[in-house]
Amino acid sequence: MSRPLTVAAAQLGPIAKDEPRASAVARMVAMMEKASARGAALVVFPELALTTFFPRWFMADQPSVDAWFEAEMPSADTAPLFDAARRLGIAFHLGYAEIDGPHRYNTAILVGPDGAILSKYRKVHLPGHWDDEPWRPFQHLEKRYFERGNLGFPVVDALGGRIGMCICNDRRWPETWRLMGLQDAELVCLGYNTPQHYPNAPGHDRLQDFHNHLSMQAGAYQNGTYVIGAAKAGLEEGCELIGGSAIIAPTGEIIALATTRGDEVVVADIDFDTCREIRKNIFDFAQHRQPDLYGALVDPAGGAIRKAV
Amino acid sequence: MSRPLTVAAAQLGPIAKDEPRASAVARMVAMMEKASARGAALVVFPELALTTFFPRWFMADQPSVDAWFEAEMPSADTAPLFDAARRLGIAFHLGYAEIDGPHRYNTAILVGPDGAILSKYRKVHLPGHWDDEPWRPFQHLEKRYFERGNLGFPVVDALGGRIGMCICNDRRWPETWRLMGLQDAELVCLGYNTPQHYPNAPGHDRLQDFHNHLSMQAGAYQNGTYVIGAAKAGLEEGCELIGGSAIIAPTGEIIALATTRGDEVVVADIDFDTCREIRKNIFDFAQHRQPDLYGALVDPAGGAIRKAV
Repeated sequence: MSRPLTVAAAQLGPIAKDEPRASAVARMVAMMEKASARGAALVVFPELALTTFFPRWFMADQPSVDAWFEAEMPSADTAPLFDAARRLGIAFHLGYAEIDGPHRYNTAILVGPDGAILSKYRKVHLPGHWDDEPWRPFQHLEKRYFERGNLGFPVVDALGGRIGMCICNDRRWPETWRLMGLQDAELVCLGYNTPQHYPNAPGHDRLQDFHNHLSMQAGAYQNGTYVIGAAKAGLEEGCELIGGSAIIAPTGEIIALATTRGDEVVVADIDFDTCREIRKNIFDFAQHRQPDLYGALVDPAGGAIRKAV
Repeated sequence: MSRPLTVAAAQLGPIAKDEPRASAVARMVAMMEKASARGAALVVFPELALTTFFPRWFMADQPSVDAWFEAEMPSADTAPLFDAARRLGIAFHLGYAEIDGPHRYNTAILVGPDGAILSKYRKVHLPGHWDDEPWRPFQHLEKRYFERGNLGFPVVDALGGRIGMCICNDRRWPETWRLMGLQDAELVCLGYNTPQHYPNAPGHDRLQDFHNHLSMQAGAYQNGTYVIGAAKAGLEEGCELIGGSAIIAPTGEIIALATTRGDEVVVADIDFDTCREIRKNIFDFAQHRQPDLYGALVDPAGGAIRKAV
């Protein structure tokens, strides 16, 4: 048995504040062409891939915030991505800021080679803070600008496997991975924008790459799933973002790794049947998980929900 | 603020089938003396540290099984460990097979420097199988010989910090770590007996050390806790067991590592306050966890409980 697929992580270098969406999209189309030429049937782009990482700035007026959001997908600006998918016969995963009526989300979509949206995910684990904190060299206002996602962690049958999505900070929470593992995810697409510098605990800056890979590798191994993690990387508006985009096997091994902090495509051959081998032999949930003892995991005392402003 | 402690992982080399408990205990007392001389206030011994790893053999008659179990703790054989604790003023963690009336568990205890048992844990995630499977070069009959633990994952205030325990296969399940993290564990003591060869999926044998460390490092990092993992290692009755005993910081970094597969003590200085720094700044559960979305984690369909024979 074998269900092979060739896949790509498309890391984006920095996007300047004044770089228009059309420019970022053109860079992404070039990477789709490169990935396709190397045999990839799927290319994964980062979180909030169309613009600079705008939650680093406090904006008091809503129109200034909303200018960073997409009200439709595709739009005139993003249509070239969908056109390239159809032209090249390649699927893609894209992160962007989504406005839906009065609601705003940090969103990712999976788009098939026919240009149809196959699945949508809205980020659940929003990091950062709600209020203006001008002491920081840059802010991280995701809790202010986005609502918590309301679509769960959807997993869909596509491209010969079962594909889920999560976004950036989601990857540090093992619950994220398990919720997809319990749906038999075989591949998780994941975009991130991760600053090298963490103002609250700068002693840990040296560990950002390690923690990025540790989180993705553990999530892959413990759930027997492939992971494609794609970074927005490099020095963006004074904020250095880590790279380290990677394709990770269900063994937890990194099988492709970006080595720059710029636009970079890495490609790997995967086989969805490897997931089944691990799930059957090592992580047989039905045999070994003990959900009746896990009640504390869902105790409201173990978390708190505060809506975005 | 600082809450320092010096701690040790005491890896055991193989214990032969005919090696008496008194001999294993003498080896452990020697390691307690070594750890104490290096300043350690706590020494962690492996899972089932008093005997060979007996679940590798199928035994049809219950008396043959029960001969591997401890009906009292301390006993005449294990009293020297408790005596050494008092004499040296050192705490220890010990794994052993426990018989309690009609019940049998894979158990670990934390014993204070006064020789008092501070906490007891009974293994929840029992690996292996129930039935005789003579096709294997060695068997793994934990599901047959032990009942599932009935004490949860206890975390106690001791030695200046908050200390929890888990055993071997527990470490591969992120639920284990989170259940202790939610109780603010600052140190997890963990013993293991892990064969190098996994008969069901031998293609993964090369990854045993990697998976051991990946599981412990992710559990440490994602919950902001120290981990002391102690192996029974080396060629024991024809079964090669991995080593890799390690002390791991709440950053996920390995700060002490055994390099043999024999009796070996490794020591590290830890500071429980480091856990608070990480829990406050990076993994603030109250701010970021979303337990109302985690319902599937406790869905009975995501696991199954079958009692030991």
